[in-house]
Amino acid sequence: MCTDVQALVAAIRSLAVRGAPLLGLAGAYGVALAAARGYDVEEAAELLARARPTAVNLEYGVRRAAAAYREAGVEQGPAAALAEARALHAEDAAASTSMAGHGARLLAELVPGGGYRILTHCNTGALVSGGEGTALAVVQAVHRTGELRRLWVDETRPLLQGARLTAYEAARAEMPYTLLADNAAGSLFAAGEVDAVLVGADRIAADGSTANKVGSYPLAVLARHHGIPFVVVAPVTTVDLATPDGASIEVEQRAGSEVTDLAPSPLGAQAYNPAFDVTPPDLITAIVTENGVVSPVTAEALAAVCGA
Amino acid sequence: MCTDVQALVAAIRSLAVRGAPLLGLAGAYGVALAAARGYDVEEAAELLARARPTAVNLEYGVRRAAAAYREAGVEQGPAAALAEARALHAEDAAASTSMAGHGARLLAELVPGGGYRILTHCNTGALVSGGEGTALAVVQAVHRTGELRRLWVDETRPLLQGARLTAYEAARAEMPYTLLADNAAGSLFAAGEVDAVLVGADRIAADGSTANKVGSYPLAVLARHHGIPFVVVAPVTTVDLATPDGASIEVEQRAGSEVTDLAPSPLGAQAYNPAFDVTPPDLITAIVTENGVVSPVTAEALAAVCGA
Repeated sequence: MCTDVQALVAAIRSLAVRGAPLLGLAGAYGVALAAARGYDVEEAAELLARARPTAVNLEYGVRRAAAAYREAGVEQGPAAALAEARALHAEDAAASTSMAGHGARLLAELVPGGGYRILTHCNTGALVSGGEGTALAVVQAVHRTGELRRLWVDETRPLLQGARLTAYEAARAEMPYTLLADNAAGSLFAAGEVDAVLVGADRIAADGSTANKVGSYPLAVLARHHGIPFVVVAPVTTVDLATPDGASIEVEQRAGSEVTDLAPSPLGAQAYNPAFDVTPPDLITAIVTENGVVSPVTAEALAAVCGA
Repeated sequence: MCTDVQALVAAIRSLAVRGAPLLGLAGAYGVALAAARGYDVEEAAELLARARPTAVNLEYGVRRAAAAYREAGVEQGPAAALAEARALHAEDAAASTSMAGHGARLLAELVPGGGYRILTHCNTGALVSGGEGTALAVVQAVHRTGELRRLWVDETRPLLQGARLTAYEAARAEMPYTLLADNAAGSLFAAGEVDAVLVGADRIAADGSTANKVGSYPLAVLARHHGIPFVVVAPVTTVDLATPDGASIEVEQRAGSEVTDLAPSPLGAQAYNPAFDVTPPDLITAIVTENGVVSPVTAEALAAVCGA
């Protein structure tokens, strides 16, 4: 339970609350919470927006609720901020449904014959969304129509969101799923056991470069090598037209202990532990948003789908 | 302590004893142990040779000691088997030294200017060898001459041989090393932080296809995508000219629990857990053996370096 802003910031930093769309909701509800409790809303908004640097949705949710608060004035502000957070929540759920439909139609085009074997990375389902999520919402949609042959679930080191969260969601939905060490994806591709890769996104730059959980980029390279579609599923709120390209995306570096503490590594062992990596647009077959599918991925098509 | 053959087979299966060259020594000393204790040597040889299927060195060591035993007759057999195991041990140490020299010269050609940033996977040092190992022997050699700028150590899921063993060997040798989740290698390549990938091998087919720890193949694909050399370091005893190609290599599938037991995965979660993957010869820049370097990797050049 987060009853103040500091606790919510701590929950975001420790990844108790995580996943791009959910971070947006957490940011918006966090501002509403600060307003309701009579905290300094502008200060709270700054703290929340900066809790983690890569997922643009966090800042987006914060800004929307803070703007609603400001516009409504001190007296009506708290109610306005809460209403805005709830609106964002409903929009996010609707976006999930819409992405699921667009994604399922795209899969039918990309992989004729159905019976999809889909590889996914990290966690992108109902646990990160007001609805059924992003990439996993598409998987749910094709599972419901009986077209999911296999969901390959990367365990997603270092924090194991795949093994802990996606496997849980897949088991609950009674999907045919198999867990694997991230390392083992290569031989699955080589054996022809993957029809498509579906992942979410934490920030999509104006040129389509996509920051997502570390390990996404190697999958994109493997997919290209094997001629397999690599598809990003994300709401347009994850697109940041103010970030021109991949090099401009700030990638959060996390504590080395997330890597070194699993095995008894030598005392003083250093670790390289980026939370995300960036996949360039030429390796992305399509970006699926609630407003439609961008494919091929170009700056123009991406701006158009965002209504810019 | 393994005082009988069953215990040694169990140690090999559980990976208490592991790594291709060391498996060869374990096989040969295992036969010598069986002979010394008066067990049925032929039966022991069969058990040992089949303890794990992929690393060809295991069978090679067993066969050599068993042949020496047979040739010497029952009375002199135990001493002959032990002598043969010791000879293999000495040959392995000499092969390490020779591979280190060839590998260091190759690096100087491939990466002009020195100051190497080398990425490695799994464990290939003194812990798997009668000498300093295979890929890590090359790293040790360039470290001694002050040419190692950084050793990037993949943690190597699921059994973490990189985090547990390679990090230990790197720390002991006072190398500048950094551990990473296997997933994070992609962004290292993308950032231009890797000059070469050096790995060992468990079985090299006649066409140069190389079975090595799962996760090696994705590194080879990444290395090719980024124009970085991918180098296999292995003694000629790892080359199996009787295995024609990659598809003919038996890849050991291990218990899913090695993957599912790390995180609290759902009850009944299935896992795909191959111990190895296979890298085709066209993705391998060079194979470094004690007899010299094979580059480009062709069946003819490989047979020649093996003296076939």
